[in-house]
Amino acid sequence: MQARTLPSPGDDRTSDEEACRQVLQILSLIGSKWSILVIGQLRDRTMRFSELHRVVHGISQRMLTLTLRGLERDGLVERTVHPSVPPRVDYALTDLGATLLDSMTALSDWARTHRVEINDHRARYDAER
Amino acid sequence: MQARTLPSPGDDRTSDEEACRQVLQILSLIGSKWSILVIGQLRDRTMRFSELHRVVHGISQRMLTLTLRGLERDGLVERTVHPSVPPRVDYALTDLGATLLDSMTALSDWARTHRVEINDHRARYDAER
Repeated sequence: MQARTLPSPGDDRTSDEEACRQVLQILSLIGSKWSILVIGQLRDRTMRFSELHRVVHGISQRMLTLTLRGLERDGLVERTVHPSVPPRVDYALTDLGATLLDSMTALSDWARTHRVEINDHRARYDAER
Repeated sequence: MQARTLPSPGDDRTSDEEACRQVLQILSLIGSKWSILVIGQLRDRTMRFSELHRVVHGISQRMLTLTLRGLERDGLVERTVHPSVPPRVDYALTDLGATLLDSMTALSDWARTHRVEINDHRARYDAER
């Protein structure tokens, strides 16, 4: 079994509670469905707000605004305003955002690999209750 | 750049929308702060409900119950009731849960590595507004 480095604030091995809290908070942000979808869409190219709104199915304008603002604040997404009329606003992954994409892929692959197994567990669990 | 396999339902390359939706839904579950903390605590050993409630700081009994139920339903955590008086209830990671722990570690390491950088971005973003 490999070394476990997941945050665990109640654990004596955690020396820095604040660092741990921050890591958790970052993971919660990344784990949000909308953040995952937006980052996934920006993997290959820069996109405009209206494009993102179209391809991220089900997201409201307000939620997309909030999601992009959070990602920009964290330095994962860069927002560029072009001084045209009307102004054009582009969103792109930063270098930091691209490194996240690589790490997220491992987890996404895990979910993809075990999707059917997890669905079977759910069906069994629900049938027993 | 390595192959990108993040879910992106609006993407033409996504052949199976339902699979994609399920992957996202699994990622959202995993991304929840409480799920991460509970899985992290169970990495080394079986724990009782009362122990988990004590070491996962800030979680309510109700939220711990819901979190464990979700993880059990997905087959990530196993619940064992020992027929003592009063009954003792233990929670442990399943083999499936242990494989998730390994994948989560990559993301957790990413958050740990870039924590300071992300905090700097936030401070700069907030100062500009």
